[in-house]
Order: sequence, then C-alpha cells, then structure tokens
Amino acid sequence: MTATADQLDATFTALADPTRRAMVARLARADATVNELAEPFDMSLPAISKHLKVLERCGLISRTRQAQFRPCHLEREALDSALDWIEQNRRIWTQRFDKLDEHLRNLHNPLDHDTGETP
Amino acid sequence: MTATADQLDATFTALADPTRRAMVARLARADATVNELAEPFDMSLPAISKHLKVLERCGLISRTRQAQFRPCHLEREALDSALDWIEQNRRIWTQRFDKLDEHLRNLHNPLDHDTGETP
Repeated sequence: MTATADQLDATFTALADPTRRAMVARLARADATVNELAEPFDMSLPAISKHLKVLERCGLISRTRQAQFRPCHLEREALDSALDWIEQNRRIWTQRFDKLDEHLRNLHNPLDHDTGETP
Repeated sequence: MTATADQLDATFTALADPTRRAMVARLARADATVNELAEPFDMSLPAISKHLKVLERCGLISRTRQAQFRPCHLEREALDSALDWIEQNRRIWTQRFDKLDEHLRNLHNPLDHDTGETP
C-alpha cells in the first residue's frame, strides 16, 4: 500500500511530538489502556486524550471497545508507510554516493576500469 | 548518534508537509539550487524559501555559499535519525508478534514444543 500525501502528512505530524512518540514506543511493546499510557506523564487526561486522537486519526493506533478499558493498539501500516517513504529516499541518496565513489575510484585507478577503449 | 527529542520533533515536522517531502526527494537525487527546487511548485520564492528554512533548521539540508547559486544538499544524518526511531519501534512491535506467533504455534502443536514435563 502506498500512503497518500495526506496520510504521510498526518503520520509525520503525529510523530513530531515527544509525548506521542513515547506513546507509540510504549504501544510497540504492548497494548495499553488510556490510564496506563497516561501514567508516565504529568498531564491531564483530556490532554492525553487529545494526543491519542492525533495518533488515532492518522491510523497509528486503534482502540477496541472493551467496556471502560478500551486498550490502544499500535497499527503497523501507518508506521510502515512513514518508514517506506524515508527508506526510499535514503536509498536513492545512498546509490548516488555509491556511484560517485565508484567514479572517483575509476578516476584514481583507471586500469581497474575496463572502458573497452584503446589507449 | 542518537537524535535528541527536539531534533526528532523538528525532523518529523519538516517531513509532515508534501512540498518539503518533494524537496527532500528531489535533493536525494541531486543537489539543486533554490530556483531548481522552486520550479515544480506554483509558489512564490518567499514561500519556497520558508520551506527551505524549515528543512535547514532541522539539519535535513545544508546550503553552500557559492555566490548566488547556493546549491542545497540533503544531509543524511537527520534522515537517518528519523528512520532509526521508526525502525527501532517497528522492530519491537514485530518481535512481539513473532513471539505471539510462536506461542500460538506451541499451543496448537504442543508435541513440537519440548516442555521437559512428563505427560
């Protein structure tokens, strides 16, 4: 699945906050209730809830409807889309410098590089 | 190098915009001047310049001072830090479900799993 620009905007916006990143890191280890997620933060429940809504809206987390517990669950797809986008551009960047390296090596050691031309 | 929370905030914020992502993708392929970067966008140069400042502030790009050309260059470190953060949490998430899979397999095929107990 290729994420739309809007989805990537929302996912990167969600990850651009230390509280939300801490929540994602917590949920990577195990599902958690809102109270469990709120525990490490000196923050009101409405503020916590606001962060969770940002994470939910971009699809990074989902919430089941188990009575009052409603555990939050990290969804892999949104994380994967953000990762794919960065990885792809980093690969292009790396390939470019690998080619430059190869070119520089050939300039320094022209005999290593068989051009097929007669000298 | 581990990025600070502030650096990650700034990098993810920079990536949370389609124009800035397009600029990063363009610069992954080759360095480019501000005019070259502006070309695909129906946007004023001050608006382009504002986006570049966001990318520069978080360290995603750097600009050399070659007279009026000032080519922009994509810096790998900031991209790597964002990638590392996502990859690390995705790995934790994946390991957790690999363990769950193994546990479920052992439940279904208890003979495959030598518990050391007598039946």
